[in-house]
Amino acid sequence: MISLESDYNNGAHPMVMEHLVRTNDEHTLTYGFDKYTEEAKQKIAKACDDPDAQVFFLTGGTQANATVIDGVLHSYEAVITVETGHINIHEAGAIEANGHKVIALKEHEGKLCSGDLRSYMEWFVNDESTEHLAQPGMVYISFPTELGTLYSAQEIADIHQVCQDFGLNLFIDGARMGYGLAASTDITLPWLYQHCDVFYIGGTKVGALCGEAVVFTHQNAPKHFFSIIKRHGALLAKGRLTGVQFDALFSDNLYLRISRHAIDMAMRLKKLLESKGYQFYIDSPTNQQFVIIPNKRVKTLEKHVNFTHWGPYDAENMICRFVTSWATTDADLEALKKVL
Amino acid sequence: MISLESDYNNGAHPMVMEHLVRTNDEHTLTYGFDKYTEEAKQKIAKACDDPDAQVFFLTGGTQANATVIDGVLHSYEAVITVETGHINIHEAGAIEANGHKVIALKEHEGKLCSGDLRSYMEWFVNDESTEHLAQPGMVYISFPTELGTLYSAQEIADIHQVCQDFGLNLFIDGARMGYGLAASTDITLPWLYQHCDVFYIGGTKVGALCGEAVVFTHQNAPKHFFSIIKRHGALLAKGRLTGVQFDALFSDNLYLRISRHAIDMAMRLKKLLESKGYQFYIDSPTNQQFVIIPNKRVKTLEKHVNFTHWGPYDAENMICRFVTSWATTDADLEALKKVL
Amino acid sequence: MISLESDYNNGAHPMVMEHLVRTNDEHTLTYGFDKYTEEAKQKIAKACDDPDAQVFFLTGGTQANATVIDGVLHSYEAVITVETGHINIHEAGAIEANGHKVIALKEHEGKLCSGDLRSYMEWFVNDESTEHLAQPGMVYISFPTELGTLYSAQEIADIHQVCQDFGLNLFIDGARMGYGLAASTDITLPWLYQHCDVFYIGGTKVGALCGEAVVFTHQNAPKHFFSIIKRHGALLAKGRLTGVQFDALFSDNLYLRISRHAIDMAMRLKKLLESKGYQFYIDSPTNQQFVIIPNKRVKTLEKHVNFTHWGPYDAENMICRFVTSWATTDADLEALKKVL
Amino acid sequence: MISLESDYNNGAHPMVMEHLVRTNDEHTLTYGFDKYTEEAKQKIAKACDDPDAQVFFLTGGTQANATVIDGVLHSYEAVITVETGHINIHEAGAIEANGHKVIALKEHEGKLCSGDLRSYMEWFVNDESTEHLAQPGMVYISFPTELGTLYSAQEIADIHQVCQDFGLNLFIDGARMGYGLAASTDITLPWLYQHCDVFYIGGTKVGALCGEAVVFTHQNAPKHFFSIIKRHGALLAKGRLTGVQFDALFSDNLYLRISRHAIDMAMRLKKLLESKGYQFYIDSPTNQQFVIIPNKRVKTLEKHVNFTHWGPYDAENMICRFVTSWATTDADLEALKKVL
Repeated sequence: MISLESDYNNGAHPMVMEHLVRTNDEHTLTYGFDKYTEEAKQKIAKACDDPDAQVFFLTGGTQANATVIDGVLHSYEAVITVETGHINIHEAGAIEANGHKVIALKEHEGKLCSGDLRSYMEWFVNDESTEHLAQPGMVYISFPTELGTLYSAQEIADIHQVCQDFGLNLFIDGARMGYGLAASTDITLPWLYQHCDVFYIGGTKVGALCGEAVVFTHQNAPKHFFSIIKRHGALLAKGRLTGVQFDALFSDNLYLRISRHAIDMAMRLKKLLESKGYQFYIDSPTNQQFVIIPNKRVKTLEKHVNFTHWGPYDAENMICRFVTSWATTDADLEALKKVL
Repeated sequence: MISLESDYNNGAHPMVMEHLVRTNDEHTLTYGFDKYTEEAKQKIAKACDDPDAQVFFLTGGTQANATVIDGVLHSYEAVITVETGHINIHEAGAIEANGHKVIALKEHEGKLCSGDLRSYMEWFVNDESTEHLAQPGMVYISFPTELGTLYSAQEIADIHQVCQDFGLNLFIDGARMGYGLAASTDITLPWLYQHCDVFYIGGTKVGALCGEAVVFTHQNAPKHFFSIIKRHGALLAKGRLTGVQFDALFSDNLYLRISRHAIDMAMRLKKLLESKGYQFYIDSPTNQQFVIIPNKRVKTLEKHVNFTHWGPYDAENMICRFVTSWATTDADLEALKKVL
Repeated sequence: MISLESDYNNGAHPMVMEHLVRTNDEHTLTYGFDKYTEEAKQKIAKACDDPDAQVFFLTGGTQANATVIDGVLHSYEAVITVETGHINIHEAGAIEANGHKVIALKEHEGKLCSGDLRSYMEWFVNDESTEHLAQPGMVYISFPTELGTLYSAQEIADIHQVCQDFGLNLFIDGARMGYGLAASTDITLPWLYQHCDVFYIGGTKVGALCGEAVVFTHQNAPKHFFSIIKRHGALLAKGRLTGVQFDALFSDNLYLRISRHAIDMAMRLKKLLESKGYQFYIDSPTNQQFVIIPNKRVKTLEKHVNFTHWGPYDAENMICRFVTSWATTDADLEALKKVL
Repeated sequence: MISLESDYNNGAHPMVMEHLVRTNDEHTLTYGFDKYTEEAKQKIAKACDDPDAQVFFLTGGTQANATVIDGVLHSYEAVITVETGHINIHEAGAIEANGHKVIALKEHEGKLCSGDLRSYMEWFVNDESTEHLAQPGMVYISFPTELGTLYSAQEIADIHQVCQDFGLNLFIDGARMGYGLAASTDITLPWLYQHCDVFYIGGTKVGALCGEAVVFTHQNAPKHFFSIIKRHGALLAKGRLTGVQFDALFSDNLYLRISRHAIDMAMRLKKLLESKGYQFYIDSPTNQQFVIIPNKRVKTLEKHVNFTHWGPYDAENMICRFVTSWATTDADLEALKKVL
C-alpha cells in the first residue's frame, strides 16, 4: 500500500530515533532543564540568527496554538484568522476553551489578505460600539496554510505592518514550517523571526514523534510562560523527549534537509498527477496536494494508495489530499505511477 | 430633542414603576423567593399556556444569553447562529468567555435559514474529521432579529425540526420579544413555547428598568440552574427587583399592549420616512427601522432627533437606525415630520 | 413578624426610590453614559478625596468580585483570601469559572492576618517548584468580613504592605462597606482609598435595589474594563438604574447616615441580647450579630422574628444570624425585647 | 552521582524503547487509531479484567487530571480532594483553568478520610445556602498519594461508598499506579477497577517516555471524549507514541514487574537510612521516601547523591525526598551506603 495520506503516519526520522536511543540511559534534569533541551534551544536560536530567542517545547499543534494564544492574550482578547484557519475549524474549540473568541476573516486560497485585515481593524476602531465587541489582540496565520499555499515575504511583511499599526501580536503556526521554508523562494527562518512576534517550528509532521518548538522573537515571552504551559497540561515531566528530538533535528541542518526532500517529492507527485490529466483544487507549492478525483476513481485508487478525503468537490468528484513527507520514497512515487 | 435612538434610553413604564413603589416598604424573601417573583412566574407560565413552564429572571440580554448557553451546553459544545447574531458580534466575547465556540452561518436579512442549518449539520455529521471540530449543541436565533426582521411560524418550525433531527437545543433570544409578538401575523407566545427549548422575554427594552424572563419549555431547565445563575454573577440578592417588574408587565396584558403601541408607532414612522422619499436598508416590520441617509443630511437631522449610526452604507450614505418603543409619543412623530 | 434575617430583604431607601421616580420619564444616554451616572461617579470620587478615582457600577457582589478579579488578573493568576472569604464559599465557583484559583489561608475571626500572608508569599517565592503552583496576583479581603468583624487601619496597612512587597493587588470587597465605615473607629473612605488597589462600595445591602460601585484607586483600572464588564454579562443597557441610585446615596451623606443608623440599631440589639443572657459566636461590631441559641428556643423564637440559621454550634445549639440595616426600626427592637 | 531525585529523570525502559524502534518505520493510522494503540487498549482492559474497559492515552499527569475532570464534570461542578492533592497544589491552577473549583479537605498522611468526606457532603446537602456553593461532582484521590502513602482496600471502598451515596464520581490519579499496586497488600488492578469510576495508569513515571492510560470503568466515558481530548490540546497526531509504549508495558507483565523492582529498592533504601539513624517525615511503603536531614548534612550529601528538597522540617532540618524507580540499581544503593 502506498502511503500518501498524511505527514504524521510514520515514526521518527532515523536520526531522531537514534538520538533518543543513544541518550536513553542518562539521568537528566526534568521539566525541560536537561542539557539536550538546552542544546536544542541554542541551536534553534542560532538558526533564527538571534542568540536571545526564547524557545519552549510543546507536544502538538493544537496545544501550541492554545497555549501561545492564551499566554499572550489578555483573557478578554480575541484572535483574528481566516475561515480556513486551523484554530477556527480543526481544534474542537480549543481556543474558545480558554475564553478567546476566534474572529474569522475571508480566506484567499487559505491565506489572510493584509487588506482585509486592515479594513477589519479600521472598521473595528471606528465602530461606535467597539467596546461591545471582542477586542482583537492577535493575528494568527499558518505557514504553509492549511491548504498547502504559501505567503510571500511581501504578504507577511504587509500583515506584520498592519499588526504593528494596530497593536496586534502576529503569531505564525508552523506545524509544517519546514515544508514551507523548503518551498519558499523568499522566506528564511531568520527573516520570519524578524517579521512576527511568536511562531513555532513543527516537529510532529517533520521528523519527530511529537514536539513543536515555540519561539518568541523579541524577548516577548509572557512572564511565567513555563507556568502557563503547566496550567495547560502541556508540560512534559520528561522534557528531554522533545529536547532530544529537536537537538537531532537542528543538527547538521537535518530539519531543512528532510523538509526539502518532501518538497522535491511533492513536486514530482504534482507533475505525475498533471501528466495523468488530474486537476487540482488549489495550486500548492508545498507537501500537501489537493486533487479533484471522480468519486468512482477514488474507490479504485484506494485499493492501492492511502490518501485523505478532503471533502466533496461536486456531486461527482471529490477533493483528495495527497501528502508527501520526509519519509516519502522514490518507490512510493514509482508505485503510484503504475496505479494512476 | 426627539428621541428615537433606542428602546432602552428611558426609565420604566409608569405601571412598572408604580408597582416598585407600592411594594418598596415590604420585607420579602431574598434571591427571588419572594411572592412577587412567584406571582410573575405564574403569570408568565399562564401566558405561555403551560403551568409547568420553568421561569428564571436575569437582568440583561448578554447575561441571559451567556448563562443559558453555558447552562444548557456541555463545556465542549458550541452554539450555532448567523453572522449577525448578537452573540457573535455585540457581546464582547461573552459566550466564548465560558468556553463555547460560536459557529456563524450566513445570514439572510438577519435570519438563519433552516436549509443552511441542515446542510451544515449534514456536513458535520458526515465529515471524516468531525470529532476534531467543535461539537454543536444548540442553535441560537433572535426574535425579532438584530436587523428588526421576523421569522414566520413556518421558518421557526423548520429550524426546530432540523434541531430535533440532529439533537440540538433551540434557544430564542427575545430581548425584543414583545415587539416581535406584536408585529408577527402568525406567532403567539404559546406557539413559540411549543417550538423551542428555551427562550427569554425581554423586559429591559420593553418597559422594565432591567430584567429578562428566561423560560425553559419542557421541564428541561438544567439541574442546579439557580446555582449556575449565581456562578455567572447573575443572581440578584433582591430578586424582587425583576420579579415585581415582570409581575406588573404580565398583569392586564401590559407587556403586549405597550409592545403593540411601539409597533404602531414604528409603522407610522416607516410611512412617514417613505413619504419623504427615504429608502430603507432592510424591510423591517418591527420597532427598529434602518434608513439610508446621505451623510450631510445625517448631520443636520441630528440637531433635532437622536438616532443611531448603524454603519456606512457607501461613501456618501449612512445606515441609520430609528427605534420606537412603548415610550414613543404622537408628539415625537409630529416633531419628526417637521424636521424631515 | 420582626424582620432581622438580612440587610437585603427590603426595597430601596425612600430617597433612592424617590430619585428613581423623579428621573423616570427622562431620556438619557445608555450603558452608563447618562448624566446621573456621571454625577454619581463624581460624588463617589469626591467622597474618596480623589477627583481622578475611576468608578464603575455593577449590580451585585458576586458579579463585582468575579469581574474585578478576572479583569485585574492575568488569566493564569490566582487570588488569595481566607477560608471564610465570600469568594471561597458562597459564590458557587464564580471566580474559578473565569479560570482563577482561589487560595484560602486560615481565617482569624473572619480576617486575613498579614503575618500569614507574608509567610505564604515567602514560602511561595522560595519554593523550588514555585512555577508549578498557581501564581498569586491579588489579595481579597472583606470590610466588614463575612462574620461581621472589622479590620483595624493597622491591620489593613500591614496587609497592603505585604501586597506591595510581593507585587500583589489588594482588592477590598465592600458589599457592606457602609456598615464597616460606620462601625470603624479609624478607617474612613479616603483612608481606605489610599490603602488598596480596588474596592467596591456596596449598594444592594445599604439602601439600593441593586448596585455596587467599583473604585480603582490609582488610575489602575484595566484597559477595556467597560468591555470586560460586558463580557461578564454585567453591563446594564439602562446604566442609569445604578447611576441614579448611587447619585441619591452619595447626596447629603445619605450612604453613611443610613449605615450609621444600622450600626446604632445593631449595638442596641447586641445589648438587648446580652441582657437576656445570650452568648455570641463572635464579637461583631457591625450590623451582623451571630448568636448562640438552643435549638428548641430557635423554634419558638421563629414564630415572632425572622433570622438566619448560620449553622450548628453543637448538638444542642445553633448559630443564628441577626442583621440590622438602614431599615431596622425602634419598633423592631421593642417587639424583639418582648419575645426574647 | 547517585540519582534518587525522581522517577522521571530517565529515558524509557529498554523494552519500551526497543518497541518504539522496532515499529518506527511502519505507516499507521493517526490519532490513536493504529494497531499498537488498539493492542495496548486490549491488554489494559484484560489487566483490568473487563474487556469493555474504555481506555484513552494522554501524555502526562496534569493533562490527564485536567482532561478527565473537565470531561466528566458539568461546567459548574467542583472536585473534592485533600489539601495535599496534586490538583490542589502542583498543577498551576490547571483544574480551575477549565472553570472547576477544587475543594480541599484535611489530609491524613496525604489521604482523604471517608469520614471527613461524608461529613462534608452531609453538611453540604443540608446547608440552607447549598445552591450558593460550588456543586461537588467528583472526588479525586491519588494512589499512591503525593506523600507516598497508600490507601487500604477498605479505605477506598469506604470512600467509594460515600461517593455512591451522594452521586459523586470517584477518580483515582495513578501517576505512580504501578508502584502503588506493587506495594499494596490488598489492592489489585481489577479490584481498583471495580471501586471507582475512572482512573489512570501512569506511564511517565513507570517506564515510558510519556503517557498515562485513562480508564473509564463502567462504560461511563463522556460522550465525545475524543473531541474533549482534542479541545484540551492533548491529542497526539502520532497517537502510536503512547500506544506503542503501553503495548510494551502491558506485555509480559512488564509494568508490574518493573514497579515491583522499584518497591524492592525503596524498601532496601528505607532500611539503609534507618540503619544509619535517619528519621522519616512520614512512613511510606512506596517508592518515595521522605527523610529528615540536618541542613548541613544536606549540603555534604548533595555532593554525592541527587535528591529533592521537599521543604523545611524546622529551622535546622530539611525534609528530603529520595525516590527509587524501575531504573534504580544495586550499584546506586551500594554507592549510597558509602556516603551516608
